[in-house]
Amino acid sequence: MSKFAPTPNDKFAFGIWGIQNRGRDPFGDATRPAVSAIDAIRGLAERGCYGFEFHDNDLWPIDATPAARDAVLRDVRKVMADTGIKATMATTNCFYHPVFKDGAFTSTDPAVRLYATQKVMRCLDVAAELGAGVYVFWGGREGVEVDVAKDPITTAGWFRDALNFLCEYVLTQGYDIKFSLEPKPNEPRGDLYLPTVGSMLAFIGTLDNPEMVGVNPETAHIKMAGLNPYHEFAQALDAGKLLDVHLNGQKPLRYDQDLSFGSDDLREAFLTIKLLKDHDYSGTIGFDAHPYRTESDPWDFVERNLRTAKILMDKVRQFNENRQIQDLLAELHGAHPELADMTKKYSSATATKLKNLELDPDHLAARRLPLERLDQLFTELLLGVL
Amino acid sequence: MSKFAPTPNDKFAFGIWGIQNRGRDPFGDATRPAVSAIDAIRGLAERGCYGFEFHDNDLWPIDATPAARDAVLRDVRKVMADTGIKATMATTNCFYHPVFKDGAFTSTDPAVRLYATQKVMRCLDVAAELGAGVYVFWGGREGVEVDVAKDPITTAGWFRDALNFLCEYVLTQGYDIKFSLEPKPNEPRGDLYLPTVGSMLAFIGTLDNPEMVGVNPETAHIKMAGLNPYHEFAQALDAGKLLDVHLNGQKPLRYDQDLSFGSDDLREAFLTIKLLKDHDYSGTIGFDAHPYRTESDPWDFVERNLRTAKILMDKVRQFNENRQIQDLLAELHGAHPELADMTKKYSSATATKLKNLELDPDHLAARRLPLERLDQLFTELLLGVL
Amino acid sequence: MSKFAPTPNDKFAFGIWGIQNRGRDPFGDATRPAVSAIDAIRGLAERGCYGFEFHDNDLWPIDATPAARDAVLRDVRKVMADTGIKATMATTNCFYHPVFKDGAFTSTDPAVRLYATQKVMRCLDVAAELGAGVYVFWGGREGVEVDVAKDPITTAGWFRDALNFLCEYVLTQGYDIKFSLEPKPNEPRGDLYLPTVGSMLAFIGTLDNPEMVGVNPETAHIKMAGLNPYHEFAQALDAGKLLDVHLNGQKPLRYDQDLSFGSDDLREAFLTIKLLKDHDYSGTIGFDAHPYRTESDPWDFVERNLRTAKILMDKVRQFNENRQIQDLLAELHGAHPELADMTKKYSSATATKLKNLELDPDHLAARRLPLERLDQLFTELLLGVL
Amino acid sequence: MSKFAPTPNDKFAFGIWGIQNRGRDPFGDATRPAVSAIDAIRGLAERGCYGFEFHDNDLWPIDATPAARDAVLRDVRKVMADTGIKATMATTNCFYHPVFKDGAFTSTDPAVRLYATQKVMRCLDVAAELGAGVYVFWGGREGVEVDVAKDPITTAGWFRDALNFLCEYVLTQGYDIKFSLEPKPNEPRGDLYLPTVGSMLAFIGTLDNPEMVGVNPETAHIKMAGLNPYHEFAQALDAGKLLDVHLNGQKPLRYDQDLSFGSDDLREAFLTIKLLKDHDYSGTIGFDAHPYRTESDPWDFVERNLRTAKILMDKVRQFNENRQIQDLLAELHGAHPELADMTKKYSSATATKLKNLELDPDHLAARRLPLERLDQLFTELLLGVL
Repeated sequence: MSKFAPTPNDKFAFGIWGIQNRGRDPFGDATRPAVSAIDAIRGLAERGCYGFEFHDNDLWPIDATPAARDAVLRDVRKVMADTGIKATMATTNCFYHPVFKDGAFTSTDPAVRLYATQKVMRCLDVAAELGAGVYVFWGGREGVEVDVAKDPITTAGWFRDALNFLCEYVLTQGYDIKFSLEPKPNEPRGDLYLPTVGSMLAFIGTLDNPEMVGVNPETAHIKMAGLNPYHEFAQALDAGKLLDVHLNGQKPLRYDQDLSFGSDDLREAFLTIKLLKDHDYSGTIGFDAHPYRTESDPWDFVERNLRTAKILMDKVRQFNENRQIQDLLAELHGAHPELADMTKKYSSATATKLKNLELDPDHLAARRLPLERLDQLFTELLLGVL
Repeated sequence: MSKFAPTPNDKFAFGIWGIQNRGRDPFGDATRPAVSAIDAIRGLAERGCYGFEFHDNDLWPIDATPAARDAVLRDVRKVMADTGIKATMATTNCFYHPVFKDGAFTSTDPAVRLYATQKVMRCLDVAAELGAGVYVFWGGREGVEVDVAKDPITTAGWFRDALNFLCEYVLTQGYDIKFSLEPKPNEPRGDLYLPTVGSMLAFIGTLDNPEMVGVNPETAHIKMAGLNPYHEFAQALDAGKLLDVHLNGQKPLRYDQDLSFGSDDLREAFLTIKLLKDHDYSGTIGFDAHPYRTESDPWDFVERNLRTAKILMDKVRQFNENRQIQDLLAELHGAHPELADMTKKYSSATATKLKNLELDPDHLAARRLPLERLDQLFTELLLGVL
Repeated sequence: MSKFAPTPNDKFAFGIWGIQNRGRDPFGDATRPAVSAIDAIRGLAERGCYGFEFHDNDLWPIDATPAARDAVLRDVRKVMADTGIKATMATTNCFYHPVFKDGAFTSTDPAVRLYATQKVMRCLDVAAELGAGVYVFWGGREGVEVDVAKDPITTAGWFRDALNFLCEYVLTQGYDIKFSLEPKPNEPRGDLYLPTVGSMLAFIGTLDNPEMVGVNPETAHIKMAGLNPYHEFAQALDAGKLLDVHLNGQKPLRYDQDLSFGSDDLREAFLTIKLLKDHDYSGTIGFDAHPYRTESDPWDFVERNLRTAKILMDKVRQFNENRQIQDLLAELHGAHPELADMTKKYSSATATKLKNLELDPDHLAARRLPLERLDQLFTELLLGVL
Repeated sequence: MSKFAPTPNDKFAFGIWGIQNRGRDPFGDATRPAVSAIDAIRGLAERGCYGFEFHDNDLWPIDATPAARDAVLRDVRKVMADTGIKATMATTNCFYHPVFKDGAFTSTDPAVRLYATQKVMRCLDVAAELGAGVYVFWGGREGVEVDVAKDPITTAGWFRDALNFLCEYVLTQGYDIKFSLEPKPNEPRGDLYLPTVGSMLAFIGTLDNPEMVGVNPETAHIKMAGLNPYHEFAQALDAGKLLDVHLNGQKPLRYDQDLSFGSDDLREAFLTIKLLKDHDYSGTIGFDAHPYRTESDPWDFVERNLRTAKILMDKVRQFNENRQIQDLLAELHGAHPELADMTKKYSSATATKLKNLELDPDHLAARRLPLERLDQLFTELLLGVL
């Protein structure tokens, strides 16, 4: 089955925090030994990953001295040089320390907001040094439980100011870095601000440098709002804003599970890969997941995520080449080609013509749409029995 | 309790389809007699409503002749003149007829897309004639069950083309009308495209005339994705895009219930009213709900929606005047005022200064945030025992 | 691919209401022509179904005269004789007519409760005559929107009284019929009483003749509460109460979709079939679904449900025969066999022995559980690439 | 506002783990200093609580020597004697230590199952000594992520065996203790077994000593499955199995929040209190919640839970005494009293009479049910404006 072995050409990347995850949860203690960042990065390289992703405090502790931090970075650069793996995405941990308990950029305390901004600036310098072109903001504490405490328009303004400032910092420093915003609807806050891909895309439109900012959708976060990952990833792609992706698995509408990609709903996993392939997405295919808490080490877990993605890439190819499926699709999309472009461009003449066009709804309604059959062909392709 | 009696100054509006709703549902037949559009409008006027909202086919049947339609419109204009009630919002029914079974603007059949566009144009003419300044698009059939059948980027393009065309039509005709997009995550389709307020706001940014288009968020639709209505309404308001609101009630994450406003979660209802009042929202306060199927006529239902909104307006006033609450809020928002504006404007000097600012996270983390106490004061104010 | 063709030996059954479903929904009109009950039954027989399931009013209208009803029944018996298909399950429509608007057995009006009871008695006579051994109660209107209107303990008493009465009726008549209760959490009521398999099983324990009553779990209804269908079906089976099953598909936590079996989550569909096979479930495998509203006729839909079930039966066989998977399972279940039965039977000696047994939690915690690997093998088997 | 001050007569109890909770969550570190068990118990006593609830390891560490444990217990007995507070509920922590990573009573390793059983036995001795009459089982690790790894019928058997053994232990020791099972649908496992009140009630029916076992429903756990807490608590009460309650708050269908009681949906909170009052529930009113992570200490939090419960008790009294509301309820429940008891007792004569009773569904359907009005009166009572 080596046909599904990943290679750097697949542009797979993995968040090292998932490798380092020790299985601690709200009701239980760690179940796995610590894995150093260096071992995590090396392990990913050995398994064919193109890149790794990191938070500042995945590499150095929040209270590290500059010297201690630099020592870590030397080791990181060494493993990168040794293995060829790239640092593809960096981000800041603005959620773990109690200082962020009521928000980082949306804290009511300006000093906390500045501390978060400063923490990002410092990590941006590292990201630039390591060559990470995408810098993610996941606002794990940007939310509330008590909505009467904060006006959500005021808090949006605070976050906007911080991003505008940080964009300018990147531009002034000449860093080749884009920002990518990662939405999540809730947890660890009762409600998180800007909970969906759409919210983030809309918010970007209100920034001073929107062209520098995109989104980083995550499967699990989308499913925590019961939304359709295929549609959410697609809107970002359609807007030219899909800078990075975080694939994983999740049962809808429950706590954040960060399961292995494809370990939940195989149709959704297929569709996500199909979207990226059909539209020639050129970013990394990042995974943001962690092993089951029952697991003793992270490596079976890492391998299965990559393998499933490869298998699904092959299924996408089969789907796009399958004659029965493609014929059905052609039939579904084949009605009235002569009318397809009528409203592409407005003119008063076209408006008049359209207003008077004879269209019989009862007749149009009668068209047969063999969607049960199409979906069944897809099902059987997925199950490997077509 | 006449202090809670609504008046046209409250700018309440009601969708007449909720008054006309006969209690039919997927598992049962109609339970109430028909109410004519004219009786619905008159009944709203008699109960102090400022406006009414309508779909084309709430007023005339889909197969009405132009003459039949004009006769209806004469009656509508008469009841408007008699009572002073305004037509504040119009919209098109592009979901009931089987022609829309696989989408209106996102149908794979260009003829269906044109039929939908034509239907909107014809109703826009009526909207302009009746003086409705807001024209809503709720895409009840714009979605899928079988995602392999349609590329969501292609369908977004079809919808974009239609809206661009229709914007030009409004501009060319010189109508004083803005478009307002109403998102919903699912039902009656497995998934609806552009499911959230954020998705719609982001989509507007990709249109040719974004300044002509805003959103019409609905409480129930937001709660069907488990999102926070206060936050969703706020993002629209913050973007200058809150053209209309649809208030109602809903248990989260289940079928569309369209319950009375405030009949579900009173905190959420309060926060929605608070947002509109605190930010001087100037549009109508529209209700999109229908009576319980057990009800014999719509009028107790109509009255309670208006009354609850009035009671909550009074609660908002009390909240904003309450000394204990306002003192707590001042305390919560009072930290480090000298740092509040440091990142408002970028300069390299500020960046350097911020990067070197001494900020001790442990010290900042120690700040007391009495949010349980604040929320309890709010609870008791809501319960009328503060 | 005839290896997946269904035969009566598979004991597949289909609710004819799904075949008769015309695509009407809360927001739209019928999209398909009517299919007569006779044509539905014949069509199922032709496609290899063992049985059909029906509501009284799927066969005859609620206001049919006895003569009209008997004429229908003659036709039904004829198609049964012609094709060999069996009437495996009968049920009463106690939800469509407005008389049930606030409940059938839980209406506040005793006359409505009696009307429902009478309606069941009359259909029980037909069920007995047609040889249906399972009689289902789905309480589509047994619920509330306004909880202050009815005490849920009082309403439970009304339902219990009705079931006790009807059990006695069956016993007295000498019918070979068991009752099967079908839970659903909500829709068409805000909340339905006895919303889960567990609630129904527990309620059965409070009846006078619990041995006559079991449950009829439905995949979609389970997923509407976000619960795990495998676990819910299993509890019913474990309790000896799984009299019938209703398989279908559903996106969790939204409106009732009644999608094709396996058109949603293939893992869940596999697990359901696995449970039935592993535990030698001997009832019919019933489907309660309807075609997409976009469909022109029901037959692609019917065929795909049966086909998917057959494919998954084959996957279950593969799973149970796969060496890698079975070895891993043996390893997972192989620890400390000598301790497996220690608490099977209580004695004071065992209690003392257990209380003093030396068990080192840190040591036991260190055991390796290769669940990522197991789940990946399962994934690849499902995808047909193992 | 001293009218809402709690007293021991209210029989309020609080889980001390909520007081001891330090604000750690999956994404962040502790935000509050430790509170000792003794300080927690004393603080509850000082605020009018009748009882406290505890896990074994809330009082002593999992690796405490018997001597260390006994020292703790001496202190606990002293604070109980000093303040009069009672130990009303005890339970075992079978979820925190990694030994339970794949289940306690449902671990595949018999040694782990025995370790859990032993841990319960040892804590039962303490519970008996401290006079706790209710012993809770919350199976935080009794679940799965990988369903192909364990047959749910096998795991149910393991749990049943353990409970049967432990019941015998209690009986043999002569302890005056009942077991109470606390369901939760998911988190920290992907799915937890026996996820609902109904599942637990049904499971109890399969035990050897069902009369010794009841349930401990928790508001938040019920809402995590989107179910109706009023209905779930009611089924337990109706079955005579409501041994204890855990009140708190939760946004539906998301991670376990354990918010303050009444800080979410005030209607639901009211209904829960109404149920307990209307049916003379005589157990303790327990709270299982913890402060917001933003809070510095637990005491505002504790006080608000008790206060809200007291306020709602007063609202229940008002509801039951309100003339308008009670008149409406009498009207709703007043139809056809002469028919109310017809099916209470079966006889063939009654069956025949009922079968032939003339009942006109159209006529019965016409009855007016003023539920919008009733719900609005309730709303205004809750808001304190009736």
